[in-house]
Amino acid sequence: MKRIEIYDTTLRDGSQGEGINFSLQDKLLVTRRLDDLGVDYIEGGYPLSNPKDSEYFQEVRNLRLRHAKVAAFGMTRRKNCDPAADVCLKALVDSKASVITIVGKTWDMHVTNVLGTTHEENLRMIADSVGHCRSQAHVEEVIYDAEHFFDGFKANPEYAIQTLRAAHEAGARILVLCDTNGGTLPEDVAERVAKVKQAIPGATLGIHCHNDCDVATANSLTAIYQGATHVQGTINGIGERCGNADLVCIVANLSLKRGYDVLQAGSLRHLTELSRYVYEIANMNFRSGQPFVGTSAFAHKGGMHAHGVARVSASYEHIDPELVGNERRILISELSGQSNILAKTAKYAIENNKEFGIKLRDIVQDLENQGYEFEAAEASFDLLVKKALDVYRPKFERLAYRVGVETLENQAVTTEATVKVRLGDAVHHSVAEGDGPVNALDGALRKALQATYPRLAELQLVDYKVRVVNSRAGTAARVRVVIESRDHHDVWGTVGVSENIIEASWLALVDSFEYKLFKDEESN
Amino acid sequence: MKRIEIYDTTLRDGSQGEGINFSLQDKLLVTRRLDDLGVDYIEGGYPLSNPKDSEYFQEVRNLRLRHAKVAAFGMTRRKNCDPAADVCLKALVDSKASVITIVGKTWDMHVTNVLGTTHEENLRMIADSVGHCRSQAHVEEVIYDAEHFFDGFKANPEYAIQTLRAAHEAGARILVLCDTNGGTLPEDVAERVAKVKQAIPGATLGIHCHNDCDVATANSLTAIYQGATHVQGTINGIGERCGNADLVCIVANLSLKRGYDVLQAGSLRHLTELSRYVYEIANMNFRSGQPFVGTSAFAHKGGMHAHGVARVSASYEHIDPELVGNERRILISELSGQSNILAKTAKYAIENNKEFGIKLRDIVQDLENQGYEFEAAEASFDLLVKKALDVYRPKFERLAYRVGVETLENQAVTTEATVKVRLGDAVHHSVAEGDGPVNALDGALRKALQATYPRLAELQLVDYKVRVVNSRAGTAARVRVVIESRDHHDVWGTVGVSENIIEASWLALVDSFEYKLFKDEESN
Repeated sequence: MKRIEIYDTTLRDGSQGEGINFSLQDKLLVTRRLDDLGVDYIEGGYPLSNPKDSEYFQEVRNLRLRHAKVAAFGMTRRKNCDPAADVCLKALVDSKASVITIVGKTWDMHVTNVLGTTHEENLRMIADSVGHCRSQAHVEEVIYDAEHFFDGFKANPEYAIQTLRAAHEAGARILVLCDTNGGTLPEDVAERVAKVKQAIPGATLGIHCHNDCDVATANSLTAIYQGATHVQGTINGIGERCGNADLVCIVANLSLKRGYDVLQAGSLRHLTELSRYVYEIANMNFRSGQPFVGTSAFAHKGGMHAHGVARVSASYEHIDPELVGNERRILISELSGQSNILAKTAKYAIENNKEFGIKLRDIVQDLENQGYEFEAAEASFDLLVKKALDVYRPKFERLAYRVGVETLENQAVTTEATVKVRLGDAVHHSVAEGDGPVNALDGALRKALQATYPRLAELQLVDYKVRVVNSRAGTAARVRVVIESRDHHDVWGTVGVSENIIEASWLALVDSFEYKLFKDEESN
Repeated sequence: MKRIEIYDTTLRDGSQGEGINFSLQDKLLVTRRLDDLGVDYIEGGYPLSNPKDSEYFQEVRNLRLRHAKVAAFGMTRRKNCDPAADVCLKALVDSKASVITIVGKTWDMHVTNVLGTTHEENLRMIADSVGHCRSQAHVEEVIYDAEHFFDGFKANPEYAIQTLRAAHEAGARILVLCDTNGGTLPEDVAERVAKVKQAIPGATLGIHCHNDCDVATANSLTAIYQGATHVQGTINGIGERCGNADLVCIVANLSLKRGYDVLQAGSLRHLTELSRYVYEIANMNFRSGQPFVGTSAFAHKGGMHAHGVARVSASYEHIDPELVGNERRILISELSGQSNILAKTAKYAIENNKEFGIKLRDIVQDLENQGYEFEAAEASFDLLVKKALDVYRPKFERLAYRVGVETLENQAVTTEATVKVRLGDAVHHSVAEGDGPVNALDGALRKALQATYPRLAELQLVDYKVRVVNSRAGTAARVRVVIESRDHHDVWGTVGVSENIIEASWLALVDSFEYKLFKDEESN
């Protein structure tokens, strides 16, 4: 099994993504997790760019990482400047990082038009910068990133190779070929990597791709087949424009499809967890369709497939979802038959209870005819199964609610909701204002329940979708509301359907509260 | 320039995606747009699976498409069944579609374990089904989808080829090789496509990929390099699990990177618009990092790149964003929308009025920052242009409204809305009950206006969509409401955005009423 080094730049290149901002604490948390999984290199930041990045390099030394080396990223020295006097190189050296990654210009046109210098001076800038870092006692290795390598090679292959050779001869341990603009397709990557391999036979090569043509994973794999042994990317492919190459997909493909040695034994089973952890830290929503780790990646809809899964499951999935710590999900939808529903209720150990299966299918079909869809509302489905099994004991009794939305003449909108519930013998009647009716109902319901169920404070509504349901009945249009909620551990969806959007929202909201309460009880 | 046929299955395989549900009207709207861009085949649905799909095939005949052929999808006949008696084939024939796509089993293990029949009977099922459809007078061509081709070929290449040959000899015009599980990597696709090409020299080949390994685009391109001339996928890559191959990326790569002939002259510039239109119709958020068409795809952050863009812009972007109808954004100030705006105001013959163009762009950008999207709300945009041109004279002045939704204990929900408007010197104050708040507001507004504007009786609300627009923004989430309305002649969309769903609905509702009144005035 050939070893491929994994170089993670989530914290540096990934943080260039739109809307992404890691705090110092975030960066340290992600570093710890990446180390836990056996990532070989963690590029922590660009020490010159901001104080947070240079603080990071101080703090990260206290983490006592088990495996990963932390790399500091920076540019070659300025033109016509002594490397010892260059501010960027000084910041890199001062970071005390044991690995320094230097990015330099490969494309002759950028040397002339962006740096405004000669081809020769650029070669000296590369060699001096690599050499200077290499000569520091605490620096174990220097990695050279050849910016715009693929475009530069296309424009002027001889010069591109000269820049790589300058870095190589100055002592860079790895030459990383960067598709900075993300515009290169796999067959061109293959050809150019092979040519470098030929031109600089002793060099260790790496690959760094961006996803602007939707082929970053394929490009990274292709470069590895051509002899690169080091791959750079980010967790979940976060990064500028269309993102960097997604290490999650690359690692899974390399290991599961091609048998390369990556990370450490057992790491792959934590890939889904890692992916979601990074989304959480970056405050981004999961990408449900993300290969390998998405919540939909092993979700089956459509009677045909679901039926197939139950019978010869492996053949309908390209890998066993457990290999990457993900799981199979059977979606309940209008295209599905009884086999989906039975698979879905498997965790209740009732799959052999045929009578119950029929009862549940009838309930689901009846609700689907009313406009319900459970594929994004597994929590509501869960409550439904509880009710059908007769194990459902309501956590509170809903008695009434009222919502008022009002504008006075040419003034702002105000919203008020009241909620009346029974808890045991006591009736709680509460009122709240809100930004809108759902927010106000949420507030009033919390007021009514929170003293009894303090863990509701963890519950947060994160998304809200509404659709008019094509009335199969031809009567008044119905509205379907799906609410996504979360606490510290889980994300769940609930659904409500009514001719009245407020009532539909209320139904979905109450399901979410109940699901949270049942979940907490079961985990105790 | 070699021609590659584009076969879109957004409406069939795409609708298998989690949370995706197209109404009949949605499907017809998407069909129209795909035809406008020169898509060669539109797979409209699976007539047997539900009544909506079979209605679609009736309705689509009234669209009078200019270029696209509409295909109906279905399975081979059941085992040991006369094709003329098979319900699925009957539904396909009854759909009256001129193109029928038949999916059949390629993988010997599925023949035995899922179909429960012999290898020979499966070959007959394929041949019979293709032949039966082929023999119908109204059927111009039959396309054969070889399900699980790549897995089937790996397991038993001889049998896989036999299934293709059966379809070919029975008259299928195209043999589509499907990576149904999405588990195949590009070099394996290349090898297996080449082998089919060799084994069945006369066949026209197609490719159908899924994105489970994050290489669906690369796989589709690879198959084309190996001689496939037909590619299947969905707009935005929507579809089951990790999605289908994204036609947006495939078309852009084929045309811009490799010079293939796809769609029709000028189509590529509408790719971004098409992508966003489909997201709107599917009620999904845009994927900002989507290659080519994402809102971040040409967004530059970080001093180095933004600076570079200013100096040698082309070298920092892999293509000119205008080629796909997208645009560059520099992420300090939010700059968006200019090309869209000019395209949309063309009918006002003001495209040469540069000052007005800038004014309107500023207004639209400001509204987009608040969460507005005008993709599916051209009537609201029309009112906006009127306001910016200073030709807008309100048909009524809105003074105030109030909505109350209430349940008494264990009783049904009641909704009441009051509306106060000024018409000339008179203030009209009216009240109505409704099924829900929008219905009640609609009713009250009609009561207030109908004596003055009797043609409002023709106005009908036909669809209503709601989306949270910045669900993770930290502050209160905003809600975008899009209402689709119609009268005897037209269908139009309007939009409202607010933190309050009732206010957002009210804004969209009032726009719809005003648009109707202006339209009637202009047509008089």
